[in-house]
Amino acid sequence: MRADGLAGGEGGADRLGELIPVALRAMAAGIAERGGPVPAGGPAAVAAALVAERGELGQVTAASGPILAGAATADERAKPEAGPLSAALPRTGVGAEAALEHLSRLLAAGSADPGDPSCAAHLHCPPLAVSVAADVVASALNPSMDSWDQAPVASELEREFTAGIARMCYPHAETPDAVVTTGGTESNLLGLLLARERNPRAQPVCGANAHHSVARAAWLLGLPAPVVVPCEGDRMLPGALADVLTPDSVVVATAGTTNTGTLDPLPEIARICRRNHARLHVDAAYGGMALCSPSLKTKLDGLELADSVALDLHKFGWQPVAAGLFAAREAADLGALTVRAEYLNADDDTEAGLPDLLGRSIRTSRRPDAFRMAVTVHALGTDGLGALVERCCTTATEVARMVDDHPGLRLWGAPELSTVVLRPVVADETGDELVARVRRALLEAGTAVIGRAALPTGPGGESRLWLKLTLLHPHTTAEDYRPLLDRIAATAGAELVAGRESPVAS
Amino acid sequence: MRADGLAGGEGGADRLGELIPVALRAMAAGIAERGGPVPAGGPAAVAAALVAERGELGQVTAASGPILAGAATADERAKPEAGPLSAALPRTGVGAEAALEHLSRLLAAGSADPGDPSCAAHLHCPPLAVSVAADVVASALNPSMDSWDQAPVASELEREFTAGIARMCYPHAETPDAVVTTGGTESNLLGLLLARERNPRAQPVCGANAHHSVARAAWLLGLPAPVVVPCEGDRMLPGALADVLTPDSVVVATAGTTNTGTLDPLPEIARICRRNHARLHVDAAYGGMALCSPSLKTKLDGLELADSVALDLHKFGWQPVAAGLFAAREAADLGALTVRAEYLNADDDTEAGLPDLLGRSIRTSRRPDAFRMAVTVHALGTDGLGALVERCCTTATEVARMVDDHPGLRLWGAPELSTVVLRPVVADETGDELVARVRRALLEAGTAVIGRAALPTGPGGESRLWLKLTLLHPHTTAEDYRPLLDRIAATAGAELVAGRESPVAS
Repeated sequence: MRADGLAGGEGGADRLGELIPVALRAMAAGIAERGGPVPAGGPAAVAAALVAERGELGQVTAASGPILAGAATADERAKPEAGPLSAALPRTGVGAEAALEHLSRLLAAGSADPGDPSCAAHLHCPPLAVSVAADVVASALNPSMDSWDQAPVASELEREFTAGIARMCYPHAETPDAVVTTGGTESNLLGLLLARERNPRAQPVCGANAHHSVARAAWLLGLPAPVVVPCEGDRMLPGALADVLTPDSVVVATAGTTNTGTLDPLPEIARICRRNHARLHVDAAYGGMALCSPSLKTKLDGLELADSVALDLHKFGWQPVAAGLFAAREAADLGALTVRAEYLNADDDTEAGLPDLLGRSIRTSRRPDAFRMAVTVHALGTDGLGALVERCCTTATEVARMVDDHPGLRLWGAPELSTVVLRPVVADETGDELVARVRRALLEAGTAVIGRAALPTGPGGESRLWLKLTLLHPHTTAEDYRPLLDRIAATAGAELVAGRESPVAS
Repeated sequence: MRADGLAGGEGGADRLGELIPVALRAMAAGIAERGGPVPAGGPAAVAAALVAERGELGQVTAASGPILAGAATADERAKPEAGPLSAALPRTGVGAEAALEHLSRLLAAGSADPGDPSCAAHLHCPPLAVSVAADVVASALNPSMDSWDQAPVASELEREFTAGIARMCYPHAETPDAVVTTGGTESNLLGLLLARERNPRAQPVCGANAHHSVARAAWLLGLPAPVVVPCEGDRMLPGALADVLTPDSVVVATAGTTNTGTLDPLPEIARICRRNHARLHVDAAYGGMALCSPSLKTKLDGLELADSVALDLHKFGWQPVAAGLFAAREAADLGALTVRAEYLNADDDTEAGLPDLLGRSIRTSRRPDAFRMAVTVHALGTDGLGALVERCCTTATEVARMVDDHPGLRLWGAPELSTVVLRPVVADETGDELVARVRRALLEAGTAVIGRAALPTGPGGESRLWLKLTLLHPHTTAEDYRPLLDRIAATAGAELVAGRESPVAS
């Protein structure tokens, strides 16, 4: 097979049908080789594996035979690597099969795989197979969402899907609209950008619990750094918010913090914003998809009072990255993104009926991420997705109870979504550094990937380091996490001993 | 099969091995159904097809049987659609197979497929099968590039790949570095952002030939609108540039314009920038990968004098979107992107040896697009990629000759890369509106997707509308485009007649 076979057009599906099984077999082999949630040995071991693999690929290059179906000629292949390009960019190819086989196995063996329940550090979900399969078709046909003549039906599908998302966020609004983004970070940036376009003096205001992307967006957009409102229990204090608001404020509230999954009191915050004529954006990247669950959606009461909302289906939604969404209560606000480029949306083309897509994003070329999101929702239904969200939240509640009952662990608080925050009891004696070491020891051993969060111990209390489990695996039960809890406690004990024996290790 | 099966972890490859063939069969059926580069009938027909498909999917929902393997129970399935969610977000799923089958066929039938040679409007390439296959593994394992513990080997692979790209752009620099972006638009934004961080008074300056993303980035970053330098033959006039430069200027030159593929005179521009202590960013999103071709790379002489470079492998590089890159001559410049987030790159984790990835992007969660780019380069080698670039450029030169020889067509100028700009001769008589109508007529008929470009007729001349063919299909020869040229001329003739018969149609 030629290394340069195309994925689309006539015959594309056949070529993919030959190559994808090669990649999947290599992936399965790599997962088996890893045998846990993450490769053992930490960064040094992973870097060494890459160097070894480079050697193997080099040997394939030097060998001959039918596996070498690359575009280079035999003469070129015989030449040694030379010129300005590094080993990472070899001049001579090894062919599609060999490259896929080696590098797919390497990627699988060296990944932190959220498909393993012990990989539970971040808002980093295990993707659904249906979404990954749908993405193959999107990749192969490569619709680019910046003009209709690059994405005829993909743009229609996106329009319908985003209309559905807008309606989900704003059931009673007159003209809600939504666009696709690269994730919560870009969605939060859009929230501030739209505010800036309505008011050049916009002043961001957010809780101490807000995602770092809020401050970063302010920096990027040339806005002043956010005014930070204090929190209690990782939740914005509405009274403190009221104290700082002006009509220039654009408030960013959080519906599911990255640290603990806590939701800000949206109805109260929205009331305060209205009273002060301040704009409100809600970062619901984590919690937003709870709207799909009849039993959980009340947590998001008040969401539709916001001017805009960030959602992210690579969290609850089980999409591969990227799967960001941004909803606005008033479609007119998105007019701020309008831009003209003669080759993409000339006036006469738009008048002739060709939809203008360029104003749907701050990007130009854009992958049709809405396609796999739409296929997923059609496959499972919003009820099906809501059931998966519920499952994760229920599991978190049960795991939290186990933590509370565990003699070696302390629970930070009851989970509101699917994040369980905990700390080894022995850390009360030794301090935060032990907590950080437990996390790194588990990661280095390849037995678990867990997260960390700095959180105040109580009202006005000083910040302490906690461990966190962000439970996004939709098929586990609490019992699957019991061995992990025991391992955290045992590792804390072992690190305590190690720390006493060799203080240098700290 | 359960609709909510995972793509990663144990068993993930097996589930994908069941679902992907369903998607590929549907894709092949959709391509056959389309039978051309783009669906006929324009936006109205495509929208109607989507509505019809919605009906079919609805019938699947209403029916029963093993195809309905969705997460919803039979009871729920019996309930009519209700509640605030629109038809685009059905409450009840139809199962993974049915959703994939229907929507993949729909996407393929309704796409503008760059795998068809007659789809040649934009910098919208037909992706290589090897890249699409590699992306399956990346999607399934879902590494997120914002922290090492979400992307152990993926981050190493990216580091090596971007180091290779940086070295390719800057063979002699001391500390070149590169990062992955969502495309040329984000790369151009980074070029201006890094300039702003070194000098808050940064004033963008670009040619009239620059991509619209330059002005958009200035707007987004809160910088003044670019000073626009006149062009001749779609090429920036160095003398005019020298007239406007100040030490606050950040110049954006273009190595391969979107309209014509023309390259700005980089060595001269770089000299002028140095003399004026102005910063220089080169938008080489289109032309940059010519560095892989020994015979074409001299076109990019002077590139390494730039402070930063935008590349995009979804053009020459044959990657699905997104595949943007940004190279900086001095790694220290990228320090502007540094950001701290306790949960992702705490100081003590970084000191303990966990690589800090957060400062490699303005995004947070990030797909490992470098993986499929790296697999592609290992499969074909840079020589293999360079050969494909040469092929496209050679074909363009030959097609341009055919245009020049064609009695019904006029050639704008000799192609520098792979873009052929032309105009029906009869348009001299009728004006630009006929040109726009020819493009739309071919699109509506489903026979060809060609682009448009407004370009001055000569030095100081007024702007006229041209048609363009952007040739990115790496397996075609000039002869494949002869029927398309005839069709353009014939359609112009037909539109001329139609315009005369019914002046209302204009």
